[in-house]
Amino acid sequence: MTNMPAVEESDQATAQPVIVSPAQFLNYWQGNRRLTRRMIEAFPEDELFSFSVGGMRPFGVLAWEIHQVSELTLSGLRTGEWPMPNWRDGTSSDRAELLNAWDALTARIEAELPEVDVTHYSRLHALPWGEMSGWAAAIYNIDNEIHHRGQGYVYLRALGIEPPMFPAYMAP
Amino acid sequence: MTNMPAVEESDQATAQPVIVSPAQFLNYWQGNRRLTRRMIEAFPEDELFSFSVGGMRPFGVLAWEIHQVSELTLSGLRTGEWPMPNWRDGTSSDRAELLNAWDALTARIEAELPEVDVTHYSRLHALPWGEMSGWAAAIYNIDNEIHHRGQGYVYLRALGIEPPMFPAYMAP
Repeated sequence: MTNMPAVEESDQATAQPVIVSPAQFLNYWQGNRRLTRRMIEAFPEDELFSFSVGGMRPFGVLAWEIHQVSELTLSGLRTGEWPMPNWRDGTSSDRAELLNAWDALTARIEAELPEVDVTHYSRLHALPWGEMSGWAAAIYNIDNEIHHRGQGYVYLRALGIEPPMFPAYMAP
Repeated sequence: MTNMPAVEESDQATAQPVIVSPAQFLNYWQGNRRLTRRMIEAFPEDELFSFSVGGMRPFGVLAWEIHQVSELTLSGLRTGEWPMPNWRDGTSSDRAELLNAWDALTARIEAELPEVDVTHYSRLHALPWGEMSGWAAAIYNIDNEIHHRGQGYVYLRALGIEPPMFPAYMAP
């Protein structure tokens, strides 16, 4: 935590250089979500919640985890509250239900992420897995998605299925 | 490209909110590099450049690709020049050589990333795989690392080896 630059709120709009704007960050997250959604669709229905390599979780289970972490991240960035998800809540082994939940959250992110107070990215937040800045929480959420999606690429290849092009979501 | 907010250089220091500071971005990239380095070390020496699942590239080959994209990204962000890497240049199937190259680039990133003109993140750059902002180029580079590292997790599990904890690099 010692490496985090101390940023006074009053300095934020005047002294800090810009690496990514809120609009770019939204595009980036949504682009990742589009690619992960294509991965969910790419699996044969009977393999999505059963196929695995090396004893790892099936891709459908990983996708529900991504969904829950993403939902927590959106609400945490807005409200500052980060309750531990109940991982079994609302999950199922039905692809249509997963895609419905996915699409509903995509719409929420589109509407609600722009409402996040930008000072929340530099503030520290108490996540279930540790204290970190809003930036770290937001980017960890996407890293988690990419990490597990990359695992899904191996599953698809092991099934003899060509996965969607990576990254395919590059936007400015 | 149409979604990118037009940002005048003169506005950058005064009008744009901050999601991530240059120091945080450096920590984030280096934290990812530390975890990927641990993955390179986690493979048995004789499997690093040979073991594969589903006909994919072995992890050592993926790690060299990560290295080359990272090297291009560092120099491209600094100079605006993005020549297509010669993917076979300087690569080998020797773990020590890979780790030496890895560590040398880690030191360069530590020294040189802070020297990147922050306006380069909002400008468009002509990468070998398309035109994008410096931000998109920088984050794609890390996404590529996470994507392939996630694949390495499956390889290790398929080999019966416990991979390092993910993410483990969370810093503020």
